[in-house]
Amino acid sequence: MPEYPTALGASTRDTITLLGHDLARDVMGQVGFGELAFWLATQRRPSTGETRVFEAVLAALADHGFTPTAITARLTYLSAPESVQGALAAGLLGGGSRFLGVTEDCGRFLHEQLAGRQLPADDGGWDAIALEVVAAQREAKRFVPGLGHHVHKDGDPRTPRLFEIAREEGLEGPHLRLFAAIGRVHPQVLGKTLPLNGAGVCGAALADLGLPMELLRGFALLARTAGLIGQLAEELRDPVANDIFLSVDFNNVSVPPSPYGGHDG
Amino acid sequence: MPEYPTALGASTRDTITLLGHDLARDVMGQVGFGELAFWLATQRRPSTGETRVFEAVLAALADHGFTPTAITARLTYLSAPESVQGALAAGLLGGGSRFLGVTEDCGRFLHEQLAGRQLPADDGGWDAIALEVVAAQREAKRFVPGLGHHVHKDGDPRTPRLFEIAREEGLEGPHLRLFAAIGRVHPQVLGKTLPLNGAGVCGAALADLGLPMELLRGFALLARTAGLIGQLAEELRDPVANDIFLSVDFNNVSVPPSPYGGHDG
Amino acid sequence: MPEYPTALGASTRDTITLLGHDLARDVMGQVGFGELAFWLATQRRPSTGETRVFEAVLAALADHGFTPTAITARLTYLSAPESVQGALAAGLLGGGSRFLGVTEDCGRFLHEQLAGRQLPADDGGWDAIALEVVAAQREAKRFVPGLGHHVHKDGDPRTPRLFEIAREEGLEGPHLRLFAAIGRVHPQVLGKTLPLNGAGVCGAALADLGLPMELLRGFALLARTAGLIGQLAEELRDPVANDIFLSVDFNNVSVPPSPYGGHDG
Amino acid sequence: MPEYPTALGASTRDTITLLGHDLARDVMGQVGFGELAFWLATQRRPSTGETRVFEAVLAALADHGFTPTAITARLTYLSAPESVQGALAAGLLGGGSRFLGVTEDCGRFLHEQLAGRQLPADDGGWDAIALEVVAAQREAKRFVPGLGHHVHKDGDPRTPRLFEIAREEGLEGPHLRLFAAIGRVHPQVLGKTLPLNGAGVCGAALADLGLPMELLRGFALLARTAGLIGQLAEELRDPVANDIFLSVDFNNVSVPPSPYGGHDG
Repeated sequence: MPEYPTALGASTRDTITLLGHDLARDVMGQVGFGELAFWLATQRRPSTGETRVFEAVLAALADHGFTPTAITARLTYLSAPESVQGALAAGLLGGGSRFLGVTEDCGRFLHEQLAGRQLPADDGGWDAIALEVVAAQREAKRFVPGLGHHVHKDGDPRTPRLFEIAREEGLEGPHLRLFAAIGRVHPQVLGKTLPLNGAGVCGAALADLGLPMELLRGFALLARTAGLIGQLAEELRDPVANDIFLSVDFNNVSVPPSPYGGHDG
Repeated sequence: MPEYPTALGASTRDTITLLGHDLARDVMGQVGFGELAFWLATQRRPSTGETRVFEAVLAALADHGFTPTAITARLTYLSAPESVQGALAAGLLGGGSRFLGVTEDCGRFLHEQLAGRQLPADDGGWDAIALEVVAAQREAKRFVPGLGHHVHKDGDPRTPRLFEIAREEGLEGPHLRLFAAIGRVHPQVLGKTLPLNGAGVCGAALADLGLPMELLRGFALLARTAGLIGQLAEELRDPVANDIFLSVDFNNVSVPPSPYGGHDG
Repeated sequence: MPEYPTALGASTRDTITLLGHDLARDVMGQVGFGELAFWLATQRRPSTGETRVFEAVLAALADHGFTPTAITARLTYLSAPESVQGALAAGLLGGGSRFLGVTEDCGRFLHEQLAGRQLPADDGGWDAIALEVVAAQREAKRFVPGLGHHVHKDGDPRTPRLFEIAREEGLEGPHLRLFAAIGRVHPQVLGKTLPLNGAGVCGAALADLGLPMELLRGFALLARTAGLIGQLAEELRDPVANDIFLSVDFNNVSVPPSPYGGHDG
Repeated sequence: MPEYPTALGASTRDTITLLGHDLARDVMGQVGFGELAFWLATQRRPSTGETRVFEAVLAALADHGFTPTAITARLTYLSAPESVQGALAAGLLGGGSRFLGVTEDCGRFLHEQLAGRQLPADDGGWDAIALEVVAAQREAKRFVPGLGHHVHKDGDPRTPRLFEIAREEGLEGPHLRLFAAIGRVHPQVLGKTLPLNGAGVCGAALADLGLPMELLRGFALLARTAGLIGQLAEELRDPVANDIFLSVDFNNVSVPPSPYGGHDG
């Protein structure tokens, strides 16, 4: 018979454990939700400082207003109010490479750039690495993930704040340091000054916290789940989904079919 | 032109606000994730005590081991590792009426029973209401939501703990009181003693916190999102999804089609 | 060891069967897709006439333009183009009780009304049942599912056509007959003439085909999957999702939070 | 005001059109479901032969027994029976890069290999291209998508059948020809004989039909939607999902947490 090992939730007739602890006695009432999410993902209980940085990231990503994820969750709730799980799932499905992706892309990019490098001792050393990194991306005609923002062109207010919180907690690690250096040196290479994206700095911070690289997007999605519940709660009290639907449907224009003759057609 | 009002996330070139506050200055680093989720859902910042009860509920519901939601998330990640959002969404879609539903069902049931009633002054008064409620359900041949547990037959360890935490915080409201009274009196009506379900007491506590009744299931899903990330993280390090798939597929038995002749066939 | 019986797909090193038939030899190239979908759902191969009625229903439900499901699929594809499965899944999640529900609601309603009744011999007999049914709904202050349409107020063009096709194939069964009778008699009871909804008549036809009542919504979703692929293909060639997103986001209006004080607050 | 052009479904008070045709008169009862799905995706009505090849592909991909998608749909239906749309969506979310991906991967791979090439006049010419292609993949230490099958090691029965159907309809285009040539020549390069995968040949056939390359996975998902409805229908009559869940849950083994110390931990 196969066996399925797990360190997560388990129960017997009389006990319930989570991560090897008695759920009722040692977790409930003792462990905050951000702390627990970190613990579940790493099987290691975070320090108070780690929890504060992690929760600051979750706050930064929880809700960005009428994004595709929010619109989608509201429209789905309009269509299928019997299934709150469907509305949340539909919203999360928009958390892919384009809209929530910069957190993951930036964290992974920094991580790859750091692989196998000797970590420098001071800002000058970080600047040298950053110059090399930005120049290589430019050479390859690729963007630097996390550099630039389509709205906050003069600076994303989340960025300096997250650096500050990480510094206060002694958790400014190599990913954040490299990202800061990229912010300092990129104008020399690119000839213009771009802001460090707030969702990008979140990826750097999550990477410095040692969270699994493959799941960085998952933490953005966890934050967004709380935001989507907020969207649905607001939709319940002050509905707009039907107006959104009608504003699209009323402005549809029938055009003749445009036959697709194939791949080069 | 239509307008879409919202009190959630909003941004201009220079500012980002959330719930009317400056996100970077007043929320990041200041507000825990459970607290923020409550705030997003109610547009009211919870007290410390409310946050503690709310986070105790989330801890109680975060992960219950190899549930259908967990198995589904792992199998989906196995099949489509490019889409973490798909694995989480698939897992959440199992958070419906049967597996995560008792939280919502119990909260709603208690809420309906309280509607229009004068709240009693003491336990004796609560017992009288509970007797009436349990007797009416029995009469109608319906179960009392939240009464009974298929594993924890002698008592769910989460239940007394959540009552205790709520009491410590002065937040044992009418839903919890009625649920406790149901626990005391039901043997008189049903002739047997059943445990108060831990997921059920979570519904009572969420209702006492004043969270939107239509979204009670949403909070169970928020908790489970953290649990599912834990499941995927464990799957990455100690994979079992392929074994689960193969154990089902290898034990399939081909049988002849059984024609379905229609509704009474 | 558990065993999992199935009459659906199975394979060995040398063979692949589906529904007890050799897939390559007996199904591929021989069985149309609508026919196969019917066969998979009922484990009974449909007649040519049944297939024609079934495919007419699927055509009637495949695409209704910029519905919430279509908008959602396009927005999700915009956000997460790496996951076509996510865009389709998100679209289908809007296929719930409100937007695709009338097919299921109407089919189930007619089925419940027919339960235990002697089927009449002529239109007069059907009219008598229909009068009883409509009067009972009116008495209970409930709508008759499938009666009325918010756009096609003078008649839904799909309705007479589906009756015609079913009649041509000799497949106008009791559900369609009762629905037709409701169309004839309801003005006597309600004092106004309402159209028979095209999605409703689809439910009646699916019920007459003997498809599983619990899955009627599933056939609407199958039809819609084809429609959503059409939506995504059109989005690829003539994109509108970003315009939809921006038209909502640009018209957002920040309002102060409106604290939700609880259930009666 | 924005405008949203579409050639898909549209309606006025009196008319419903689809792809520029009167839905009731010209589509319902006249157009099969596979034909309609092709038409929706390309805005071009397929020929009878194209429809036959397309439907043969859909048949080949509709159901493969207890795959992760099927298990997931059944488990989700067990947990949330109120949401058929959720069960189907959860199943489709497993249709990603690993389990349904070979159709898309193979079609895209062949398409990329053909880009910019002069098409040869005979099998000898195709063999020369195929040799070059297989050798280049080998050189780059990459697999040839669609070559090999983990079960049908001596040949996938779907492969010769789909070639045959395409040939009968005069629709064996460059993608199928190149794939056939790869089947002939790869032993010379790889030193062993591998079967041409049936899901891979489906990708070649879809590419030859001129369907949009970005949505090849979508057609596998359309086929699978029909299969998943079959799975849910079988689950309703002969349920196994609860046994699957219990067989996993009963064989869980609690292990101590294994702290994840970070990316190199």
